Amino acid sequence: MAAREPVTPPVLDTAAIRRAATPELVLTAVRDALIAHAHGRTTVPPPVHLRFPDADGDCHVKAGWVTDAPDFTVKIATGFYRNPAAGLPTNHGLVCVVSARTGEIRAILDDRGLLTAWRTAAAGALATHAMARPDAATLAVFGTGEQARLQVEWLARLRPVDTVLVHGRSPERARSLCEAFDALGLHARPAAAEEAAAADMVVTTTPAAAPVLRAEHVRAGAHVTGIGTDMPHKNELPAALFARAALIATDDHQQCLDHGDFGHAVRAGATTGTSDTPLGLLLERPIERPDGAITVADLTGVGALDAALASAVLREPAP
Amino acid sequence: MAAREPVTPPVLDTAAIRRAATPELVLTAVRDALIAHAHGRTTVPPPVHLRFPDADGDCHVKAGWVTDAPDFTVKIATGFYRNPAAGLPTNHGLVCVVSARTGEIRAILDDRGLLTAWRTAAAGALATHAMARPDAATLAVFGTGEQARLQVEWLARLRPVDTVLVHGRSPERARSLCEAFDALGLHARPAAAEEAAAADMVVTTTPAAAPVLRAEHVRAGAHVTGIGTDMPHKNELPAALFARAALIATDDHQQCLDHGDFGHAVRAGATTGTSDTPLGLLLERPIERPDGAITVADLTGVGALDAALASAVLREPAP
Repeated sequence: MAAREPVTPPVLDTAAIRRAATPELVLTAVRDALIAHAHGRTTVPPPVHLRFPDADGDCHVKAGWVTDAPDFTVKIATGFYRNPAAGLPTNHGLVCVVSARTGEIRAILDDRGLLTAWRTAAAGALATHAMARPDAATLAVFGTGEQARLQVEWLARLRPVDTVLVHGRSPERARSLCEAFDALGLHARPAAAEEAAAADMVVTTTPAAAPVLRAEHVRAGAHVTGIGTDMPHKNELPAALFARAALIATDDHQQCLDHGDFGHAVRAGATTGTSDTPLGLLLERPIERPDGAITVADLTGVGALDAALASAVLREPAP
Repeated sequence: MAAREPVTPPVLDTAAIRRAATPELVLTAVRDALIAHAHGRTTVPPPVHLRFPDADGDCHVKAGWVTDAPDFTVKIATGFYRNPAAGLPTNHGLVCVVSARTGEIRAILDDRGLLTAWRTAAAGALATHAMARPDAATLAVFGTGEQARLQVEWLARLRPVDTVLVHGRSPERARSLCEAFDALGLHARPAAAEEAAAADMVVTTTPAAAPVLRAEHVRAGAHVTGIGTDMPHKNELPAALFARAALIATDDHQQCLDHGDFGHAVRAGATTGTSDTPLGLLLERPIERPDGAITVADLTGVGALDAALASAVLREPAP
């Protein structure tokens, strides 16, 4: 066979990625990858971690592969916490997409964290949609950052949302987020924690180190998705909520046990370490849930989703 | 301070890298990095490894940093062993250069393995030059591949070489390599293993699983550098050679103990696990060696050299 000359891999910027990554594509890729992960059909080696104490920075390098997918990814993500003082973003990074058939570098996605944000939003929206009652109407979000906005926007793509309640520590940021939701045609208003916790669907998106809502404020029949807890010192959902839950989903059992809200609840004795169901299994077909049951999803982020999403973006016709 | 807009990182191809990476620049960067490594001033986390059994492929992701250097690197290297049958190179990869001050991706070096080959050649040449007698005149190389060529070329940049002896399993490849050396003005000829082992300077560059020379053929006053042994099942230099050596240098003590020729010699009882000197310490100033002493250098490859070299390439004015 004639030798094929290697070509320099293309760099896709955020504009090109936005053109290729339609919400339908992202939701499908993330759903399929969560299902593959639930069935053990993913490879996620332990990440490489470097620290730069003098610059208050660190770097994580994470690889991920959905078994039998045409590509795998290597994601480089840095956080340098003195950057804002110099007018620079805290976070930088990129995603290298590599062929799992030939090892060739297929592309470099200069995504500015976009794909990580989208796969997190898609996983949360898919979990909330699959686990909430079909007639759930009110949606509360704790937090006012990028994920607060994305979780609501992406869930609204999957099902009608009557009212959005926004709870944030900063009333100004909560009001501003409500205005953004109004501009999308969603009825949104700021709410106190107690009222927000009583919504039909509750999504928490904060970096809180102590629970942001009280279990007794969550109503029978409600669903709660926790997005923010991704390190051992973080904790958004109270252990007592897991004790009340009829169904607990985790995106990755071991990670959620190690550094998710599920792990806090297990260590507090509120539930057992085997009480969770892999989220992917709940996405395969409609689930049965009693009307009065409380359901909880704990998401810590699955590296193989990066691979699935990047691969899906590249499969689209060149922008 | 005004926000600085992030820019898409440039991709440097091999032509741009060749323009920037003069031999002087490579030798200086590698020497400095070996010295830093000898003094513990490098960070080299354990690599990430992925396997793709169905395609007979694997991927290594290695990060490296020379402490206080402006950049660190993340190197992605793949090997897919069925590629040649499809007309593709076996190996692919790239080097991401990342700022250790801000975490920004400074550049992507699409180097096709060039920088790894050069840093290996430079480290070997620096070791051989520093440890051989000043009046050593004949140089023998075992192996006929890329490193055989580069080790000779780079050593010839550092000191005069009267005669090059080439020993390879394929007489045709050995002759062809001699012609390439002749074209560079070096007097080269193929040689049997016994004659090659008796040269003033001996460099082994093979993937051999059993020693390529006999210790008794190495002459008093000679120096031997082993380049090829980089995995536990490989072994180029006989244990008895280490028993005869007055000075043993390793580029990384632990690696050479784990999977270098030094480790084979230690396990065979030919020398002790503490008999080696970090190569970097021998590059700081001229070493004292008795005329009749045999010296040996065992090199397994230091990840921080990638960072040093990539960083040096980027410091050069844009090509």
